[in-house]
Amino acid sequence: MTDTPKLRLYGFWRSMATYRVRVALALKGLAAEEVALDLDAGDQFAPDFLAVNPEGAVPALIVDDAPALTQSMAILEYLEERFPEPPLLPADLAARARVRSICALIVADTHPLIVPRVRTYLIEQVGLDAAGFRAWGGHWIGRGLSALETRLARDPATGAFCHGQAPTFADLCLGSLAVPARTLGVDLAPYPTVARITAACETLDAFARAHPSRQLGAPRRAS
Amino acid sequence: MTDTPKLRLYGFWRSMATYRVRVALALKGLAAEEVALDLDAGDQFAPDFLAVNPEGAVPALIVDDAPALTQSMAILEYLEERFPEPPLLPADLAARARVRSICALIVADTHPLIVPRVRTYLIEQVGLDAAGFRAWGGHWIGRGLSALETRLARDPATGAFCHGQAPTFADLCLGSLAVPARTLGVDLAPYPTVARITAACETLDAFARAHPSRQLGAPRRAS
Repeated sequence: MTDTPKLRLYGFWRSMATYRVRVALALKGLAAEEVALDLDAGDQFAPDFLAVNPEGAVPALIVDDAPALTQSMAILEYLEERFPEPPLLPADLAARARVRSICALIVADTHPLIVPRVRTYLIEQVGLDAAGFRAWGGHWIGRGLSALETRLARDPATGAFCHGQAPTFADLCLGSLAVPARTLGVDLAPYPTVARITAACETLDAFARAHPSRQLGAPRRAS
Repeated sequence: MTDTPKLRLYGFWRSMATYRVRVALALKGLAAEEVALDLDAGDQFAPDFLAVNPEGAVPALIVDDAPALTQSMAILEYLEERFPEPPLLPADLAARARVRSICALIVADTHPLIVPRVRTYLIEQVGLDAAGFRAWGGHWIGRGLSALETRLARDPATGAFCHGQAPTFADLCLGSLAVPARTLGVDLAPYPTVARITAACETLDAFARAHPSRQLGAPRRAS
């Protein structure tokens, strides 16, 4: 590769959106220095980080000292355009639309409902308790998984991965959704196609190394 | 234009996501037959429409009788790739990432929190009343507008529109956010850059014709 950029990724160990970017970087063979923020401790609102991303959100990717790129899908599209190999989008236009639509079902229709700032509002302003938030999160994740299962199971374009035989943006998004599904105790068994593809992703080194449980800041666990 | 596709857009008059696609079609000079669903009446769950989009969501765009394209951002990217003129994304890679990041701030961080299915859950399952939902919606729209204002006001890449002197995907998304902001009584005055760009969009025929208030199914109003 002739284009070897200097990459710095600001992330958080259990951030779904950071996970997507981490996997994309790994699949494209790009090494990034990762700066681990602790969102539970409010690191995202520290002046140093707000100078990087005034939205106070991760991921933020700095490429060659340019202003930070933000929002996981915008970062993925950037990586695909600048580092096209291996491709994480198919070549056919309708197929690209299918992959991006699966992504949107996760990153727009599902994920935003379970992020920490929504949890905080529901608990502090609406008065939901922990069980109420679990029900809320389980509801939206279940709805997302159900819609994904319907789409993936019935479409012949689905292969070993969401689209064909190699991972695309859609698998990065699907993999990221499996994380809170487990945290919130959502069983993947009713969604066999989702479960099969998630398992296929987890056999890939890029996904395994990017997994939240293996990041700096993650709670240590036996095994 | 040599590529003149047959386009059918399934939408709903006040759907923010349909509005984005309508504007993109108009800016690119593409004529589409619009099928107006009534989401309040549950048209999206009728078997005829579920055969088009099993997610029961609009917009859905059928191009030349192929399977429907779904999710507004996936549709916009498809339209840009198939009908590149006039471009709705800048050419520079970092600029494209900036535009897509502004879109994500709206379509992922903000819009999903105020859609009808979330409103229904909050009212029926959580017990919020109309005022509580108004507070919820106002909170998330205000947060989104504030983040947009900070980004747009401080960045020299902002021009007459979100990025430079011509509309991009970012303006389609910004324009769509102005609609529920008004419905929920959110004043744009504290966000002068957002207000200025929204007004600039509304002077364009493509935005004006696509506006929810001018669609089939919208309540009639004096003027």
